[in-house]
Amino acid sequence: MTMSGVQRNANFAKLQAGYLFPEIARRRNQYLAANPDAKIVSLGIGDTTQPIPEHILAGLQKGVTKLGTKEGYTGYGAEQGVKDLREKIASKLYKNLVEADEVFVSDGAKCDIARLQLMFGANVVSAVQDPSYPVYVDTAVMLGQTGQINADTKQFQNIVYMPCNPSNNFFPDFKSLPRADVYYFCSPNNPTGATATKEQLTSLVKFCKEKGSIVVFDAAYAPFIRTPGVPKSIYEIEGAKDVAIEVNSFSKYAGFTGVRLGWTVVPSNLKFADGTPVRNDWNRVMTTAFNGASNVVQGGGLNCLDDEGLKEIDTLIDYYLQNAKILRDCFISLGFGVHGGIDAPYIWVDMKGKGSWDAFSEILEKIQVVTIPGAGFGPGGEGFLRMSAFAPREACEEAVKRFKALYAK
Amino acid sequence: MTMSGVQRNANFAKLQAGYLFPEIARRRNQYLAANPDAKIVSLGIGDTTQPIPEHILAGLQKGVTKLGTKEGYTGYGAEQGVKDLREKIASKLYKNLVEADEVFVSDGAKCDIARLQLMFGANVVSAVQDPSYPVYVDTAVMLGQTGQINADTKQFQNIVYMPCNPSNNFFPDFKSLPRADVYYFCSPNNPTGATATKEQLTSLVKFCKEKGSIVVFDAAYAPFIRTPGVPKSIYEIEGAKDVAIEVNSFSKYAGFTGVRLGWTVVPSNLKFADGTPVRNDWNRVMTTAFNGASNVVQGGGLNCLDDEGLKEIDTLIDYYLQNAKILRDCFISLGFGVHGGIDAPYIWVDMKGKGSWDAFSEILEKIQVVTIPGAGFGPGGEGFLRMSAFAPREACEEAVKRFKALYAK
Repeated sequence: MTMSGVQRNANFAKLQAGYLFPEIARRRNQYLAANPDAKIVSLGIGDTTQPIPEHILAGLQKGVTKLGTKEGYTGYGAEQGVKDLREKIASKLYKNLVEADEVFVSDGAKCDIARLQLMFGANVVSAVQDPSYPVYVDTAVMLGQTGQINADTKQFQNIVYMPCNPSNNFFPDFKSLPRADVYYFCSPNNPTGATATKEQLTSLVKFCKEKGSIVVFDAAYAPFIRTPGVPKSIYEIEGAKDVAIEVNSFSKYAGFTGVRLGWTVVPSNLKFADGTPVRNDWNRVMTTAFNGASNVVQGGGLNCLDDEGLKEIDTLIDYYLQNAKILRDCFISLGFGVHGGIDAPYIWVDMKGKGSWDAFSEILEKIQVVTIPGAGFGPGGEGFLRMSAFAPREACEEAVKRFKALYAK
Repeated sequence: MTMSGVQRNANFAKLQAGYLFPEIARRRNQYLAANPDAKIVSLGIGDTTQPIPEHILAGLQKGVTKLGTKEGYTGYGAEQGVKDLREKIASKLYKNLVEADEVFVSDGAKCDIARLQLMFGANVVSAVQDPSYPVYVDTAVMLGQTGQINADTKQFQNIVYMPCNPSNNFFPDFKSLPRADVYYFCSPNNPTGATATKEQLTSLVKFCKEKGSIVVFDAAYAPFIRTPGVPKSIYEIEGAKDVAIEVNSFSKYAGFTGVRLGWTVVPSNLKFADGTPVRNDWNRVMTTAFNGASNVVQGGGLNCLDDEGLKEIDTLIDYYLQNAKILRDCFISLGFGVHGGIDAPYIWVDMKGKGSWDAFSEILEKIQVVTIPGAGFGPGGEGFLRMSAFAPREACEEAVKRFKALYAK
């Protein structure tokens, strides 16, 4: 065996296991290998399953076709995205609450979160909702913001975990916790499906302003909000442009999970303590460590934001919201504590004291349904399972049948 | 003015100016604003200009079309790329010198270089050819590997600069320099257009093996190599799989600069000092900080590697190589010292003692041709200009006319 003399990055050694979703896929495939005839139904990873609608698809097609012509061909574009798309995002999705040059188009929210961590660097303290999307914590660890994981609490040193659970209506009590520099906050929430109210987000913005902290608001599930008055963007909150970055993505809007297109808004008046605009350093990251979203894919993004495209998105979201209702109703009828699934594609089910990995395994083995163990989203998710409404309707209905067979008294 | 209390990442403050290529665009646009009638010819950024050929375009089209059907729709794919594409890269481009599961498909070499730096972290010493593609140094600075820049030498503390110039035939004398952990090496070289011989790369691999170092070999310009015997991949060198990572991209192969598709090879037997396979940590980066290349775009990559696609690539490269010859012959006829442009798309011209930013400005102002100042690639590039052969033929011919008018005695 040959080994180099290059020391492994110690931060990577702190990450205990692989990234959550590949681990779920591994367990599913392991089960399938041992039970090749199993008819698995997946309510696991939040992955869209419905075809891309016509008008949006035409945008992608146009993106391709023009590359075959001398007049239409384009090479490197602006690393921040094509101007038309930045403008359309600002006007159609934000009603001009943000400017086009505050919008940075990218290959997705997950990648942008990692790049935001690269920008913040090793010497900030991050706060996350517990449970939360694992990328916030994992990338904070990679960048060296944390110490080791505590084997008992399953928490990393130097991260502020903000408990979000039924007892606080999934909204954290910031004031009782140590101050952090950067607050990652997701609404509609992944994994709990909880949405924050205008009052709650106002208190978040006010708190961060007082403490001199930055909010990274993850709005990837915003189009699922149908209840009037629930904010779809942090910029609906007064003063948010002084404290908040917003990451977002076309993945769940338009079935672009595999197509890869997202954006991040960095307001021009958000500044570091020394007065440097955050946008300057973000621009440096995007131009140096990234090279723009695909020109083909941006063609699809442009059509998403036409009136026709927006209508198609609404229809897709209606479909998934109906799935969410079906799953939610099922677990309510079975007597479980159920959260989310109203303005959100995720159902968060209290497994009545069972450990979440145990519940995951039992359900996989007994009824061949894949879910996600809540503990995969942080220690605060222990005892819960997340179910995704992104499966096809038939799959959701089949899952409901099986859950009823398993749990009905 | 409101300022947050979040400290700016000190590593970003070390980066003196913006990223090179946007800075060139800024100067070009500034000139154009002052001289709106100027007919600018660009030999600047290495950006492809020819349309994507038919068979490759059909792959992209297929990538789109199937997303509109229930059977063909795909969401998240493997973060490492679709299996067929990984296999095709291994067999068609590497003649199975590498395995499919050592190939990680991505949105491009630039992004992969930044992610490699994220994997290596703050505590390695990087070595770069001087001059070199600015991303190696800039991302090393961002990750905290370096000290401040020295105002006199224009070099960052704690980076090993390996001079590459006509006096050493553009191949560095490793042995006279301090040891580094990671050696970034690019052949055919950006910006000098130099190619390393088999003997030279053998000495690089041997040296890194002895010193326990890792090579990051940037082979993005490999298809330009037409001279028999010049290695197109580091893995043509015996023992390279013990020491070398290779980054590569479809950008220059197939005009995919804006389409975004690349790959990185991490051999399974490459290990950190503690025995951890480098591939494990690379996989963690790719699954956590990235989410796979676009499924649409991977469809195009698959067609690139069909026999028809490979033939189309050859035709494209022929075209750009002919441009390179035209530019090279021009500067030779004008009595300049000229390098590169034979198995490479870049011409590296010795500006006879003139500073490279001065030469850049003079040429822009006098004959409205955009070039890239050599000093933008590191202090060792001072006194040179890089010219790109990726312009359309007419532009290259027009530039030659103007250069002759400016410089002919």
